Amino acid sequence: MRIGLDMMGGDFAPLEAVKGVKVFLESGATDVHLVLIGDEAALAPLLAEAQLDQSKYSVVHSSQVIGMDEHPTKALKEKPQSSISIGFYLLQNGKIDAFISAGNTGAMMVGTFYTIKAIEGIQRPTISTLVPRDGSGYGLLLDVGINADCKPENLVQFAVLGSLYSKHILNNPNPTVGLLNIGEEEGKGNLLAQATYPLLKEHPQLNFIGNVEGRDIFTNKADVIVCEGFTGNVVLKMAESIHDMAVRRHIDDEYMHKFDHETFGGTPVLGVNKPVIIGHGIAKAVAFKNMISLAQKVHESKLVDKIRESLVK
Amino acid sequence: MRIGLDMMGGDFAPLEAVKGVKVFLESGATDVHLVLIGDEAALAPLLAEAQLDQSKYSVVHSSQVIGMDEHPTKALKEKPQSSISIGFYLLQNGKIDAFISAGNTGAMMVGTFYTIKAIEGIQRPTISTLVPRDGSGYGLLLDVGINADCKPENLVQFAVLGSLYSKHILNNPNPTVGLLNIGEEEGKGNLLAQATYPLLKEHPQLNFIGNVEGRDIFTNKADVIVCEGFTGNVVLKMAESIHDMAVRRHIDDEYMHKFDHETFGGTPVLGVNKPVIIGHGIAKAVAFKNMISLAQKVHESKLVDKIRESLVK
Repeated sequence: MRIGLDMMGGDFAPLEAVKGVKVFLESGATDVHLVLIGDEAALAPLLAEAQLDQSKYSVVHSSQVIGMDEHPTKALKEKPQSSISIGFYLLQNGKIDAFISAGNTGAMMVGTFYTIKAIEGIQRPTISTLVPRDGSGYGLLLDVGINADCKPENLVQFAVLGSLYSKHILNNPNPTVGLLNIGEEEGKGNLLAQATYPLLKEHPQLNFIGNVEGRDIFTNKADVIVCEGFTGNVVLKMAESIHDMAVRRHIDDEYMHKFDHETFGGTPVLGVNKPVIIGHGIAKAVAFKNMISLAQKVHESKLVDKIRESLVK
Repeated sequence: MRIGLDMMGGDFAPLEAVKGVKVFLESGATDVHLVLIGDEAALAPLLAEAQLDQSKYSVVHSSQVIGMDEHPTKALKEKPQSSISIGFYLLQNGKIDAFISAGNTGAMMVGTFYTIKAIEGIQRPTISTLVPRDGSGYGLLLDVGINADCKPENLVQFAVLGSLYSKHILNNPNPTVGLLNIGEEEGKGNLLAQATYPLLKEHPQLNFIGNVEGRDIFTNKADVIVCEGFTGNVVLKMAESIHDMAVRRHIDDEYMHKFDHETFGGTPVLGVNKPVIIGHGIAKAVAFKNMISLAQKVHESKLVDKIRESLVK
């Protein structure tokens, strides 16, 4: 398989991207060919120094970069030679099987929607985050910011997408689904949560266990937690800030270390026709390496096909 | 002044309530008379053992208790001799100046709305929580669960109520107000946040500083952070769970200790005609003591009058 990597995206690109490529290649992955998209002049010395196996990668030159704060649609239109634009061109035309970037998130979303597009039947593609649990691995929370206003049926699709991700990527055979809410019993919550609960309860493909509250996010009460993207984004950024606080205050605790976003690397866009992985702007080598591994897993698990199949049931 | 305290409310009542009374009285408050509402037979031995100054309190007998999981309206109707029902009767009739309970939160809210009622002009009374900041004191977040669905004008009133609370109770002369959102710039967020931003910006009584994100909640970016009660409640319970995790994992860190809800004690209901303080169900002695001090401060600062005055401006 061929994985495309935006070498210019993120605060520490291209150096950390090259480092991540090196870690990935040295971890022994055999059948992955990396397509490194970036400024050849900037990449050449870094790649030479890294002494990589040249049969394992190729470079595709891009002469432009979309900045982290640029307007997504405008930037994509005005910079067709940017690494993100080229990445989506290659993905759309089958030259790569997955595309990864830690660059401008908005541009990645817009690029995704305009090129490979949402799977037919998916109303709202979504992004998720892994949430560290005190004791046992990671849970999945979605949506975390792409869909700030949602309808009940959107949350139901997030639950289906999250369940498939949990099953095929996180290896939970029968993932439990919880609805993020502000009370335990059915009938609690805002209008959205009240309307969503019965739909989740009746859904034949979901292992719905009821409401979960803010206090349950970091427990193993549910493998997949669904909410609209406003609350999800607040939770995500709050969790990140708690990790930053722990680092700043030298709190040396194994669980707190699990909040480190380098561990996850990035999140796939769920509900679109090909694997796209969006990384955190502050991604470093380990995050890049983990995003490549994640892209590989998403491709090999045929997650996109599983999602398509779930829609015709 | 006379402060009424529900001695039967909370998971550790009445023992911890008595202990809290003792700590409060021994801290040297002079002009407060406590009205302890509870089962006389249960209280008598505990009060005798505590050896309190008997001039400083009186006991009002209540023969019923509203359980933590009872339906609020039903329980208030069926248990007129409960400590909560009696507390509101005393408050409504001017026998006490403030009422405190760590019991059934729903019953406390319903009791508040049906007896002392919302201040004229306040659409939605609200409850808040103090959020510990890494470095400098506490911020204020509201609403934290009473108002799960809000309109923009509700959030504006929360901002006014929170600012007055911050000014008169937390001693911030000109408290800054932030809108909890999922992006920094105006125009970001869900429909509610987008519609609320310009109203906050134009409000003459508010020191509005713009959007704050999940990562800013535990910083001093804003003294008062407003959001609807769904997101606020998720944030509150998530923060509590992080403190519980720190305790469980023996993380000994000064900042993490600031998350301890015993420190706050409880939250006043903002926007109603008399001081009502609602405590956490797991309140112990220090929390009860702090709630009494808070009730005293709310009464002495004439916060309710300041809120009324702000509405006629």
